[in-house]
Amino acid sequence: MEEHVVFVGNKPVMNYVLAVITQFNSGAKEVVVKARGRAISRAVDVAEIVRKRFLTDVDVKDIQIATESVETSDDKANVSAIEITLAKQ
Amino acid sequence: MEEHVVFVGNKPVMNYVLAVITQFNSGAKEVVVKARGRAISRAVDVAEIVRKRFLTDVDVKDIQIATESVETSDDKANVSAIEITLAKQ
Repeated sequence: MEEHVVFVGNKPVMNYVLAVITQFNSGAKEVVVKARGRAISRAVDVAEIVRKRFLTDVDVKDIQIATESVETSDDKANVSAIEITLAKQ
Repeated sequence: MEEHVVFVGNKPVMNYVLAVITQFNSGAKEVVVKARGRAISRAVDVAEIVRKRFLTDVDVKDIQIATESVETSDDKANVSAIEITLAKQ
């Protein structure tokens, strides 16, 4: 099954909200909102705005958190990550 | 049942990690890590650091996200919130 994913970064929240809505409107039954580090707060905003303000038939199906290893030019660092699975009821 | 809660704000991550560890070491079977707005990313860091680095018998039992209404001096705003329930296995 194809997975529909939106990676949340440093753009305005509404860019990602629109991306999620577009995927649901294209027929996706589930959309996974992913983010790392400071963007995690924004990913939660995206999920909340989508389901509270735009698609009230969409709900949070699952939330996972994890630690990912990121390699910079000369170092390694651990960064937290989140995956929020939104699903149509 | 008494609920053990740690509210994550703008202090260094390790302050909250220590608070969680202290509660588990005082006999808590579950500790709920809560945060709002930008502190959400830090709350995820707290949960990940506690279970990966310090208390490997602790795991994420549940994660909830929500929208809360915050009243400032002359306005109302919505802010996202997270509750991460950590539990001893």
